[in-house]
Amino acid sequence: MIAHKVLFLVLDGISDRPCEALNGLTPLAAARTPVLDRIAAEGVCGIMDSIGPGIRPGSDTSHLSLLGYPPQEYYTGRGPLEAEGTGIHMTAGMIGFRCNFATVDANGLITDRRAGRISGTEPLAEAIREGVDLSALGLAFRFESGAGHRAALALVGEGLGDKVSSNDPKNEGVRPPAVQPCTDDPADKKTADACNEFIRQSAEILFDHPANVRRVEEGLPPGNLLLIRGAGKMGAFPQFPERYGLSGSVISAATLISGIGKVVGLEHIPVPGTTGSTNSDLDAKVRAAIAELGRKDFVLMNIKGADEAGHDGKGIQKRDFIEVIDKALEPLLDLEDTLLVVCADHSTPCAIKDHSADPVPIVIRGPGVRVDRTVRFDEVSCAEGGLHRIRGCDLMPIALDLINKSHKYGA
Amino acid sequence: MIAHKVLFLVLDGISDRPCEALNGLTPLAAARTPVLDRIAAEGVCGIMDSIGPGIRPGSDTSHLSLLGYPPQEYYTGRGPLEAEGTGIHMTAGMIGFRCNFATVDANGLITDRRAGRISGTEPLAEAIREGVDLSALGLAFRFESGAGHRAALALVGEGLGDKVSSNDPKNEGVRPPAVQPCTDDPADKKTADACNEFIRQSAEILFDHPANVRRVEEGLPPGNLLLIRGAGKMGAFPQFPERYGLSGSVISAATLISGIGKVVGLEHIPVPGTTGSTNSDLDAKVRAAIAELGRKDFVLMNIKGADEAGHDGKGIQKRDFIEVIDKALEPLLDLEDTLLVVCADHSTPCAIKDHSADPVPIVIRGPGVRVDRTVRFDEVSCAEGGLHRIRGCDLMPIALDLINKSHKYGA
Repeated sequence: MIAHKVLFLVLDGISDRPCEALNGLTPLAAARTPVLDRIAAEGVCGIMDSIGPGIRPGSDTSHLSLLGYPPQEYYTGRGPLEAEGTGIHMTAGMIGFRCNFATVDANGLITDRRAGRISGTEPLAEAIREGVDLSALGLAFRFESGAGHRAALALVGEGLGDKVSSNDPKNEGVRPPAVQPCTDDPADKKTADACNEFIRQSAEILFDHPANVRRVEEGLPPGNLLLIRGAGKMGAFPQFPERYGLSGSVISAATLISGIGKVVGLEHIPVPGTTGSTNSDLDAKVRAAIAELGRKDFVLMNIKGADEAGHDGKGIQKRDFIEVIDKALEPLLDLEDTLLVVCADHSTPCAIKDHSADPVPIVIRGPGVRVDRTVRFDEVSCAEGGLHRIRGCDLMPIALDLINKSHKYGA
Repeated sequence: MIAHKVLFLVLDGISDRPCEALNGLTPLAAARTPVLDRIAAEGVCGIMDSIGPGIRPGSDTSHLSLLGYPPQEYYTGRGPLEAEGTGIHMTAGMIGFRCNFATVDANGLITDRRAGRISGTEPLAEAIREGVDLSALGLAFRFESGAGHRAALALVGEGLGDKVSSNDPKNEGVRPPAVQPCTDDPADKKTADACNEFIRQSAEILFDHPANVRRVEEGLPPGNLLLIRGAGKMGAFPQFPERYGLSGSVISAATLISGIGKVVGLEHIPVPGTTGSTNSDLDAKVRAAIAELGRKDFVLMNIKGADEAGHDGKGIQKRDFIEVIDKALEPLLDLEDTLLVVCADHSTPCAIKDHSADPVPIVIRGPGVRVDRTVRFDEVSCAEGGLHRIRGCDLMPIALDLINKSHKYGA
């Protein structure tokens, strides 16, 4: 029997190092995970370097790698991926940025880099789209509000570079610096000029926007300045369906991940109630993934909460949320005709509160898989499995081969 | 907890193949090694191809690889590294050579390629430095005596090539050939001419040097000719402290290894009583390493005697010396705040009396490491460990990540 469908379940940052708070176990090893363990027992396990041994991945570079787009070749910064995830359709040559709504005081000093974690900024975004005009620079732009204080910007036009600095000083109580070109290339100067003009015009619009006036009256910091960063030039991505012969969807509350899915040609399936945090409706997410597998050949689902606990350095909370995830995954045990791949995109050790290059556990379960003797889904147990140590970029070729969609090299 | 220091302990050539003299065990598997076994039990184990599977490494290329300088990119022959280790400060473009003091008879035939393993050659070296003059060729030179019959030469000037033959016939009873350019490149001809002139002038000086006259009177072979080989053009090495953000030292009695350390920017710490052989004062070496870890972030320590036994094909002697090494390592068990990496640079199987490409055992022990179930430090046991099979060039990235000094790729 050969499966016809593939589900990549990426448990974001679930992988860790031994935690003191857990008697030297990792959160995954300390957690009670009967569902993940059964998947491990029924599959072939291993460890995986998302990019390469010792290379500490971002979520963006690791997901690109897992999807078979080596970041060394395809990664051009977070901006274009975030912009795509926020709803801007990015095409090759556009310059994408991540933005924050921030607060500046009457003296031009930044008092809150996230404008009191403002939300509901769509009216502000609409005013910017209507009011800002870059045509004097020969350029157009796209601007979309995102979750909370977040937004995305894309510059559209000829001869734009992506080597520019940010106006985000990463500090409060200081004046935001101008965006500067990082090279002598006139393309970078053009982008920097456009950024500064966009920031200037948008600040004027935001300053006395009714929504901000209301916030001030309520004693809340207004979102009256945009901080923009992560400039990157959108590249050309060979589209997933043509490249692999598989239709596909991405299910992720994180705009960065849904953005990556969209740029490679996966359909983004929003799931109400999912948050990318530990309060996410995981049952809804798992139901959505199973439903998508009815319509599509390939689904990438990212579950993010464990990563958050890792970034916060909370080992016990991470362990507990892993148990919540495990319960939610139970319906996946009944998947038929599906190659199920469970892995992390990177480790997020509580001890360092950030991503690390430690390899992640992985299991592949489905028809045709050579089941090994591993019966536990954790970092040390999976390292004893039959997959040994693979790289993120090996994953798509292995999955394609297991569903008989690989191309013979030679005769 | 995260370690802040790194110790690379390279047990030179300790890795082997099954030995008939040891009932089919390797010397490492046959040896009683409670200290190494405890390190293995407390760490994560694996096997490592210093350069790549099936690539048979030299000590120089393997150490470059372990330090994160891929030899394919950085290796330009043994000469420049030996020259640096012998005390010549090599800068980019200089041509380095290894030299032997040898003995020729009145007919110009080589009677001893090592001049009776002459030692104390510094007066001879000084006479050469004072007497030889290459200015007619527009060149300067550096010459330093090394351990025993060894010495090093560097040519300094514009337009020098490194594709030249040696005047060492590798045989006795024959006349040394002239150094020849190996290509039509005038730069190689210039180097060959300089070598021949250097050999001619130095032979004149050595012939009636008082130290040699005395040796002849004592019935000892005089060091009256220099054999030079291993030509290589010194390259530009990005310096270790800037590259990795770590200060570092190298502890090795072998000039080749200390030379490699010095060219990449490690401080060479000489340790009295160490010889690079089985009579070395290993306790002093281990004490020196521990002291260096108090001053520096990174220490590379090479212990060489087991390699020598391998080259001699003496399995039992190799096993016994491994037990001596193991005892000397005991103080390392108390290292705190230190990531300890124990490995070999290459295998030196007694059966072939030379280096082989068999992967070497490796263990990484320290805070944050995912301890596996391996409890024995030998070739077969480590192959079952949680690191699986890595490459020499993976080692620095992995170590940097474990001490939280890696750079995130992406966001």
